[in-house]
Amino acid sequence: MSDTAASEAPRRGEPGWIMHGEMAEQPEVLRRLLADGGPRIRRTARRIAARRPRFVLLSARGTSDHAALYAKYLIEVELGLPCGLTSMSTTTAYGAKPQLQDVLVITVSQSGGSPDLGASTRAAREAGAITLAVTNNADSPLAEISEFHIDLLAGPEKALPATKTYTAELLALYLFVMGLKDDDGSAAAVLPDLAAEVLARGDEVRDLAGRYRFAERMVLTSRGYGYPTAKEAALKMMETSYIPALAYSGADLLHGPLAMVDNISPVIAIVTEGLGGRALQPVLDRLRGRGADLVVIGPQPQVDAASHGFALPTGRLPESLQPMLEILPLQKLAYEVTIARGQDPDAPRALAKITETR
Amino acid sequence: MSDTAASEAPRRGEPGWIMHGEMAEQPEVLRRLLADGGPRIRRTARRIAARRPRFVLLSARGTSDHAALYAKYLIEVELGLPCGLTSMSTTTAYGAKPQLQDVLVITVSQSGGSPDLGASTRAAREAGAITLAVTNNADSPLAEISEFHIDLLAGPEKALPATKTYTAELLALYLFVMGLKDDDGSAAAVLPDLAAEVLARGDEVRDLAGRYRFAERMVLTSRGYGYPTAKEAALKMMETSYIPALAYSGADLLHGPLAMVDNISPVIAIVTEGLGGRALQPVLDRLRGRGADLVVIGPQPQVDAASHGFALPTGRLPESLQPMLEILPLQKLAYEVTIARGQDPDAPRALAKITETR
Repeated sequence: MSDTAASEAPRRGEPGWIMHGEMAEQPEVLRRLLADGGPRIRRTARRIAARRPRFVLLSARGTSDHAALYAKYLIEVELGLPCGLTSMSTTTAYGAKPQLQDVLVITVSQSGGSPDLGASTRAAREAGAITLAVTNNADSPLAEISEFHIDLLAGPEKALPATKTYTAELLALYLFVMGLKDDDGSAAAVLPDLAAEVLARGDEVRDLAGRYRFAERMVLTSRGYGYPTAKEAALKMMETSYIPALAYSGADLLHGPLAMVDNISPVIAIVTEGLGGRALQPVLDRLRGRGADLVVIGPQPQVDAASHGFALPTGRLPESLQPMLEILPLQKLAYEVTIARGQDPDAPRALAKITETR
Repeated sequence: MSDTAASEAPRRGEPGWIMHGEMAEQPEVLRRLLADGGPRIRRTARRIAARRPRFVLLSARGTSDHAALYAKYLIEVELGLPCGLTSMSTTTAYGAKPQLQDVLVITVSQSGGSPDLGASTRAAREAGAITLAVTNNADSPLAEISEFHIDLLAGPEKALPATKTYTAELLALYLFVMGLKDDDGSAAAVLPDLAAEVLARGDEVRDLAGRYRFAERMVLTSRGYGYPTAKEAALKMMETSYIPALAYSGADLLHGPLAMVDNISPVIAIVTEGLGGRALQPVLDRLRGRGADLVVIGPQPQVDAASHGFALPTGRLPESLQPMLEILPLQKLAYEVTIARGQDPDAPRALAKITETR
């Protein structure tokens, strides 16, 4: 385990030591997934591409649902396939019998153990879908139920807030989707080094955390590829610090919730370097016009134009790979704010690691 | 305009008088849509059914996005067609070229004037999709761009928070989806009277509003058909009162945000009478076990088992029609809380009625 901020790392048994360790593992996890997982993911993609799916459905919950949303953008932009996120209860509660010929159903789950994901995947397979499970447990019920399986190879994740399995899910889905169009995903090769570079800048995140320690609420926004990052960062913040964090696509923010943003509601904007970031500019202008406390996670010039921020080394990366870097300072921010508030990020109240929704 | 709580109704020009009037119009709007809109909607449905769509995509923003989500449940459960909500930026920002043969694209928009909805609908039509616009303006650009159009016939909506166009969108989508399976939607005939009955109980909502006047945040939850109601109620609360209101499906709530619910976070649960409500029971039990302040909008026995609530006359209604009643006390709650806080529900800060996202 590489430790990127040794001086501030919690010792074994101290609050947050498990989450801290798992966040720090991420460069290594990405490297392993590229090297050991990549060839197999590409083979799986080739076999599925040969079946010519016409429509893609993604099923997931919690953090994995944000990885699924990322994959939805990638599938629509890179493959031009119509794509939807599953409303699981239509199958599990209402017994819907979907017509799923030519449909690829991708189920994303860290544990692969949630009963409703298993049930909806089984129903999809019986309805004729091509089923693919993306999990961190090759022996899980979900991996068993699905025709195809991608293993995240991230090692056991023990902290309740998912961190390393999220970035591994993003990368696995990237390699798979690019594999469907016969692209070897080699643009991702630089990710592990860039992730290590970002994680080494823990001091900057600690400074940001000081600004949010006493926040009563927080708004996160982005557009396009950065939007899943906004949603995942909001969940991370809520499940560790309990600060209500609301995530909106920039377009939706203008449709109502903007009324809630004022000089007492800080806004974190995830600004990708690329078309999504460009589409977010009018929203950033509106926020600045309202005097919002605006923190930007994104390229240096965007950070310079905001109140505060964390500059990402995005220059060498396609926009579709930036989400794997963007989330890193935001995971750390949730961790630091929680520590500062005297709580334990490893064990939020009331949560179990495998959620048994049915 | 029928006025259901005359004694408390604001006079012309007082804060909230426009929203109040539009909420009160809802029984009449539903009645008009059933009588004058119904036959045409059924004809449109027959023509589209003859084209045999295999997938459905729904595009919308803000309040209309919640009506689109409702339609997604209905399409999956009633028609067994795979269905997705559009990530609009993939077309408008990234220029994705989707393959949309056999795909029905439904765009829902009160004004029909938002440029990004127009652009994404035009792109869908050019890509071979069957396009249907559901709007409150038959002369709008969106109605023009789409091959088919359903008119909500709701009359001009002038308050910034959408109310009557939301319930009209739900009913129009219900009639359309049922029409696709050659059902005349006559189960909806009782709705106008039931809506009037619910709206007449404004006093009960005012009592509830007293509980939330000073709330710092609010969590809304549901499952299945009630979930769009939770999302719409959260938006309504935020855009009028600026109270951060977070909506989660019951299943997702257990995957993280539950950590945020404690005895200082009130929870509003929308409990449908039917399979979705049944699937929500374990979540309600968890919330009660944590001592949450739980308000139920749903059938009388569910209200009796909660801290507080508003009982809906759901006995005669299929679960799929209950959302049109559930939202009524919640619109009123947002209105009453906002009035109590000395703000004007008609004109939230910073919002324009037609949002020009591109």
